[in-house]
Amino acid sequence: PQAGAQTQSDVYDYIDNRLTNLESKLEGVEGGQEPWSSYVSEFGGRIMYDQTFAIDSDDSLKDGLGVDDLEEGAELRRARFFAEGAVAPWLAYKLQIDFGDGDVSTKDAYIKAHGLGGLPSVKVGHFKEPISLEEQTSSKYISLMSRTMLTDGVISQGRNHGLMLTDHYGDDQVNVALGVFDTGQNGKSAITGRITAPVVYSNGGRQVVHLGASLSQRNVDTFELGLEPEVHKTDDFVATRDVSDSETGVEILVDDTQVSGVELGAVLGPAHFQSEYGQLSLSTADGTDPSVDTYYVQGGFFLTGESRPYDKADGGFGRVKPNRPFTGANSGSGAWELVARYSVLDAEEMAGVSAIDGDGNSTSVAAAGVAETNVTTFGLNWYPVAHAKWMLNYVNADQDALGSASYVATRFQVDF
Amino acid sequence: PQAGAQTQSDVYDYIDNRLTNLESKLEGVEGGQEPWSSYVSEFGGRIMYDQTFAIDSDDSLKDGLGVDDLEEGAELRRARFFAEGAVAPWLAYKLQIDFGDGDVSTKDAYIKAHGLGGLPSVKVGHFKEPISLEEQTSSKYISLMSRTMLTDGVISQGRNHGLMLTDHYGDDQVNVALGVFDTGQNGKSAITGRITAPVVYSNGGRQVVHLGASLSQRNVDTFELGLEPEVHKTDDFVATRDVSDSETGVEILVDDTQVSGVELGAVLGPAHFQSEYGQLSLSTADGTDPSVDTYYVQGGFFLTGESRPYDKADGGFGRVKPNRPFTGANSGSGAWELVARYSVLDAEEMAGVSAIDGDGNSTSVAAAGVAETNVTTFGLNWYPVAHAKWMLNYVNADQDALGSASYVATRFQVDF
Amino acid sequence: PQAGAQTQSDVYDYIDNRLTNLESKLEGVEGGQEPWSSYVSEFGGRIMYDQTFAIDSDDSLKDGLGVDDLEEGAELRRARFFAEGAVAPWLAYKLQIDFGDGDVSTKDAYIKAHGLGGLPSVKVGHFKEPISLEEQTSSKYISLMSRTMLTDGVISQGRNHGLMLTDHYGDDQVNVALGVFDTGQNGKSAITGRITAPVVYSNGGRQVVHLGASLSQRNVDTFELGLEPEVHKTDDFVATRDVSDSETGVEILVDDTQVSGVELGAVLGPAHFQSEYGQLSLSTADGTDPSVDTYYVQGGFFLTGESRPYDKADGGFGRVKPNRPFTGANSGSGAWELVARYSVLDAEEMAGVSAIDGDGNSTSVAAAGVAETNVTTFGLNWYPVAHAKWMLNYVNADQDALGSASYVATRFQVDF
Repeated sequence: PQAGAQTQSDVYDYIDNRLTNLESKLEGVEGGQEPWSSYVSEFGGRIMYDQTFAIDSDDSLKDGLGVDDLEEGAELRRARFFAEGAVAPWLAYKLQIDFGDGDVSTKDAYIKAHGLGGLPSVKVGHFKEPISLEEQTSSKYISLMSRTMLTDGVISQGRNHGLMLTDHYGDDQVNVALGVFDTGQNGKSAITGRITAPVVYSNGGRQVVHLGASLSQRNVDTFELGLEPEVHKTDDFVATRDVSDSETGVEILVDDTQVSGVELGAVLGPAHFQSEYGQLSLSTADGTDPSVDTYYVQGGFFLTGESRPYDKADGGFGRVKPNRPFTGANSGSGAWELVARYSVLDAEEMAGVSAIDGDGNSTSVAAAGVAETNVTTFGLNWYPVAHAKWMLNYVNADQDALGSASYVATRFQVDF
Repeated sequence: PQAGAQTQSDVYDYIDNRLTNLESKLEGVEGGQEPWSSYVSEFGGRIMYDQTFAIDSDDSLKDGLGVDDLEEGAELRRARFFAEGAVAPWLAYKLQIDFGDGDVSTKDAYIKAHGLGGLPSVKVGHFKEPISLEEQTSSKYISLMSRTMLTDGVISQGRNHGLMLTDHYGDDQVNVALGVFDTGQNGKSAITGRITAPVVYSNGGRQVVHLGASLSQRNVDTFELGLEPEVHKTDDFVATRDVSDSETGVEILVDDTQVSGVELGAVLGPAHFQSEYGQLSLSTADGTDPSVDTYYVQGGFFLTGESRPYDKADGGFGRVKPNRPFTGANSGSGAWELVARYSVLDAEEMAGVSAIDGDGNSTSVAAAGVAETNVTTFGLNWYPVAHAKWMLNYVNADQDALGSASYVATRFQVDF
Repeated sequence: PQAGAQTQSDVYDYIDNRLTNLESKLEGVEGGQEPWSSYVSEFGGRIMYDQTFAIDSDDSLKDGLGVDDLEEGAELRRARFFAEGAVAPWLAYKLQIDFGDGDVSTKDAYIKAHGLGGLPSVKVGHFKEPISLEEQTSSKYISLMSRTMLTDGVISQGRNHGLMLTDHYGDDQVNVALGVFDTGQNGKSAITGRITAPVVYSNGGRQVVHLGASLSQRNVDTFELGLEPEVHKTDDFVATRDVSDSETGVEILVDDTQVSGVELGAVLGPAHFQSEYGQLSLSTADGTDPSVDTYYVQGGFFLTGESRPYDKADGGFGRVKPNRPFTGANSGSGAWELVARYSVLDAEEMAGVSAIDGDGNSTSVAAAGVAETNVTTFGLNWYPVAHAKWMLNYVNADQDALGSASYVATRFQVDF
């Protein structure tokens, strides 16, 4: 029925009938059949559609990368389905698949035992290793379109196969996670742990100070770096391979690696802040033992007064819910947020380290690919409703050996 | 309470309370958790299983294609899951993935804003460019097993990343769609538009005349053609590459391309008709600027009296619902339909045009692969119920330079 | 949203959306109807996470396989979503996709007509060929982590495209399945049939004797073998290719092949038993016509008194339901089961048979890869609840020409 073509009373009666009908159906529903597999409690997903424009770049950078134009364009950054549920009160699972651009990848695929007496929770399967505040925060809830150089490939290790224990101490004030993971190098493993605490949590989460630290000892034979400058749809500015040759990888020969990070997060009313410092130390076959150092500082502010939600149980940030959702004409404005970040990666010590190329021949890491890189990002976010977000980012990336470039990028996002 | 006795705001609050109450009760139905993501309103999919037999072929054709036998056999033509819903009254989404033979591909993955005042709808993400009546009609609802040469690679551009505005004028009599799309060649873009109108729409859709036109201006560096003869599970009869060498592509060097098409559709009781003419014009680097011309005419008739449904909002055809569904013994017969189509593609002007092969070496398009091709198809369809279809096709394809072949193919289809 | 801040039409649309959403959910809860797409009656999946350790191995074996260490490590053995339902009372479908390690594959994708008068059921699409008791038993319900050498590549043919008739005779005492399948070699086909009967079925399924036989005549040009020793995450011990070269396949040139198998299954209270003998006969181009012989015997026992469920309709084993589920502290113990299996494969007759390598060059099958192989497996299973399982396996595999190795492997499994 068209509301405009009817009197208000007609519309009301129509709605009233539907409501009454629903209410009567719902009575005695307890004995009803399960609608689906009764072990699926939620099915959903996310769509993130990005458009990236390389608006300015040094000729020296393009020459160094061996390209006529920097990569840019549109992509489905993430397109996912997931299901989660429980097969027993103490035994949950999640399975999440990504169908983003040109690729299918299994993200979460885990089984989790929890709530058995005072025992820690146990997770087995494929899931995120417990490192980094930014990594533990879902991509649905990050404040800028790209995570940092620190997160993407230096200290964070993404999702891997493994077994992890998690526990909470003292009224959820201290969270500990400790896991054994498969490094993907024929059964070699890593031990990874993280400890976090909201040392301040008051005013219903409008005042928070989060501290954390993580450490990972990794048994691997080779290590390779290849990082975009906090813009996903472009070239790698930092790489152990020859940066002008995107086809041939160069892997450093290592005995093992160690990753460590410290993290700080804060919420103060409409303002929020986060910063991490991380170090990657390689025990290399040639004895040079280089380190990579990286950090970032990020701040944001809700023009419309919301606070960035902090999740005490996970030690990460959560979903922004606009105070006044934009649900149509003459409704609220949604939430508006400004964000800025400065990020540094210094991989210079890797220059000259012994490595092998894709054919297994000896080589060494060229200095041009591992120079210090600084990235500055400004962002504007609009959250019309809690499950949708529009992001606009300006990024300036400066690689010391090659040169700098600027980008404008935008994201349209829903999750369901 | 009587709505008339209250202010609108009171009525709203009253309804809101009852709704919230219902929603929270419903969440409790599955043991304290939401039954599913409340933002998914439909989950479904489709299965199309095809069997193709090459029943007859000229020796000259097999020699020209460099094969002992034409390709044939069974395949899962389409096997899909999708979810769709809305995260706000004005903001919908759809995510659809295909798992058909040997391949995974992301089909629809879009976000759509609509119903905001008098503004056009806006779609962003990955979806069909607005070209061609046959392309806009879902594969669930096409009348023969394969779309036409016109649709598959000449004027239609399939699904791409982009942003599209759509609007309706004059009681849905005129539909306009206009979009900017990524051509997949490092950020280069295309502008595509379509305008359609059901100039006749009467008798509840049993009498329809649909007219339409589309145009696309495309900024690309290379263009390649490779088309099966309206039989999916067989060899390419038309190709810019050497047709006897299915491994090595040959791409024409272009400055840009332009695609244009006109379309006619009609429904007259149990009969239906559709025809399209399309032209692809290449501005080539060598200045020869060839065009490809293509058209088809198709007619169908429901022996059991149904009409082919026309969708005014989308400007395409929709789901056939049998008058007397076949639901078991002693039930109706389902719907039975006869279809015939004649299709022509003339790509002769491409012969000799400058191109590059897969190794980047200069070459030119061989005449044998771009000769005029004529395809005649006869089809018998049975729709036992609205969500199932059995198709039987006979196809004769004649390529002027190589020779001709005949096929029989059959499809078993359900969608859910 | 605040009603006063919006037009009546906006408020109406917003309420309408919430009502529609509630109504569709409630349809599912009521039973008989489904919430979403009304043609999906079940959506679910499975997660199996495995960890494999190669605990001991002969140097001769590693030398023969050309590796420094046997392959081992963690993997998502299976990670699946499926949907099934019906579009008419007589017309069902299933679509199931696997996202296990590093791979996406379409498993079941079929349409099934059934219950039409006294006619056999007809299945078309992609599904398992009717061979082998172990193969017909879902991977969710197998007693050891890996199926047998008999099942994986010798007599079982996995899932293929095809059309199959199934029927039941005499109160479900005799099941017959007969199908035509596509061998994947350009339209060449196979005919496969299976007949089974529970010759004893009493005491509500606590006493069962199952007999069965299957036969498949296959029209193919080439045949290749490559089998792990009943441990999925390790190297192929048996292969027609040079076993020290995992890159280059070696395919035997054949005119056709024939597969035959006989099967025995039994349940006696908490004990169960199964055994199969299979033979693969090749009609080779060189006239040597070798055969591969294989069999296994397996027994299991539920320490907690359950019986292994037998499914009369499918002629296979089903889901174990613990008598006393483990649902938390002070609940039951779940079901505990011990299993043992001995398995033999003799492919020696393949040695020296004419073949082609990956480049199409003539070669012959090396004796080292096709020596007799014996595998002994011991297993301990815990079923805390009906939809979860933990498995622990010890496997000793002995290949006559190369040597032997031992493994310990464990699986964490849920299905939903």
